[in-house]
Amino acid sequence: MTGTARFSGGGFVHVKNPHLEAMDEDVLYHLDLGTKTHDLPAMFGDIKHGMGIPSVSIMLHELIKLLHHAKCRDVTIIRIGTSGGLGVQAGSVVITDRAVDACFQPRFEQVVLGDVVVRGTDLDGGLVEELLACSEAIPDFPTLVGHTMCTYDFYEGQGRLDGALCSFSNERKLEYLKRAHDAGVRNIEMESTAFAALCGLCGLRAAVVCVTLLDRLEGDQIRASHEVLQEYQQRPQRLVAAFIRRRLGLRAAAGNTTSSH
Amino acid sequence: MTGTARFSGGGFVHVKNPHLEAMDEDVLYHLDLGTKTHDLPAMFGDIKHGMGIPSVSIMLHELIKLLHHAKCRDVTIIRIGTSGGLGVQAGSVVITDRAVDACFQPRFEQVVLGDVVVRGTDLDGGLVEELLACSEAIPDFPTLVGHTMCTYDFYEGQGRLDGALCSFSNERKLEYLKRAHDAGVRNIEMESTAFAALCGLCGLRAAVVCVTLLDRLEGDQIRASHEVLQEYQQRPQRLVAAFIRRRLGLRAAAGNTTSSH
Repeated sequence: MTGTARFSGGGFVHVKNPHLEAMDEDVLYHLDLGTKTHDLPAMFGDIKHGMGIPSVSIMLHELIKLLHHAKCRDVTIIRIGTSGGLGVQAGSVVITDRAVDACFQPRFEQVVLGDVVVRGTDLDGGLVEELLACSEAIPDFPTLVGHTMCTYDFYEGQGRLDGALCSFSNERKLEYLKRAHDAGVRNIEMESTAFAALCGLCGLRAAVVCVTLLDRLEGDQIRASHEVLQEYQQRPQRLVAAFIRRRLGLRAAAGNTTSSH
Repeated sequence: MTGTARFSGGGFVHVKNPHLEAMDEDVLYHLDLGTKTHDLPAMFGDIKHGMGIPSVSIMLHELIKLLHHAKCRDVTIIRIGTSGGLGVQAGSVVITDRAVDACFQPRFEQVVLGDVVVRGTDLDGGLVEELLACSEAIPDFPTLVGHTMCTYDFYEGQGRLDGALCSFSNERKLEYLKRAHDAGVRNIEMESTAFAALCGLCGLRAAVVCVTLLDRLEGDQIRASHEVLQEYQQRPQRLVAAFIRRRLGLRAAAGNTTSSH
């Protein structure tokens, strides 16, 4: 799962458990890792995920291998993050029903040994419905379902006029973005096609939930204040937290039912 | 310039100047930035460059705009980093004479407004010669000139057998890597074509200097120790430092000549 983690002083991730420091060793049982048997800072201390398909692809290859080695089962994986919106109010959360490329096609193309390999980008329809149902309990921001366009570039690749290079007019830009909107695209980011393709091929149920920071039909630059953007970035996390609580609740209810019979 | 920065305690970049802390304000004159007029931690504190073409493209668009706004002139930009070698000893430093894509072509393809735009990836030939000349003063590691292949993916995209997905045999992998070697490729990384194309279009003299962490004809996994890899990573920096010293020396000599006439 990629997205904004919660950090405090020193940039470290803080656990809210005073007992941990007193423990001689902490064994992360389900990951088969321990603070004495493994040098966790050396192993994971330099993890900083970048942006875009190459970064998410490297992370997924290694995460999926970790899940495999750890014999995890029935894994659901949700990408959360930020995006540019298309004809939707800034701050809206988009649940992706279809990840498409910059030509609005549901495909992820990759060169393997010099040949172009084309992969599908199907996401789990049931998961989309479940996430949308969770959003009904969070009335303070709009949530919608739509196609998500994934590009390799933030500037020209997303039709922005404000990069170091730009070879097109405002009219051609708007014509392109309107064509994307007509094709069902509601937001634009840089990871979803590779994420959907890799998770799909490896049998992980996958979803993409991104907040929109601006409406690209209205401009290119992100002008909202730092505080507003911070609050926007928490919205996909809040939706996914509601989803996790719902799943845990269903599981607990199923457990109660079983034990009462 | 991307690559490994030198960090110490707390992960912060440390300046070796005790006077700075006593200053009421530090004005970074040539960048037109100041510690009182600009909130530098808020502006730059979260900078962490990722891997691959999308990350380097975002960084370059914004860096090139910064250089433009700051009216910088005669800028030379050098990408330093790590790579996989092809038929060269691990630890060798490769100065790129030509950045090629995964089909060994000197081009960078990008989708702009739904159309594929093809850009050249020429690098500065004089800079290659100048860097190679500098390497002669550093005899403790091999430096060579060769083509650099740039891919969108670290695993399948570089013909690795050890990803979460792999659809080819060891024989087909080696056949591909040998074809790359025959085409002049001496190392493989994930940024050079976009870097060369963007810098070229914007009139920056650009070079790519990467150390090889392994020989891909011998394997896929990076098995050298942490200490060895740390030392390898300093080699491009050492070469570029020699280059900068040489440039400064030439400039000082030219200044002396001018002032003595």
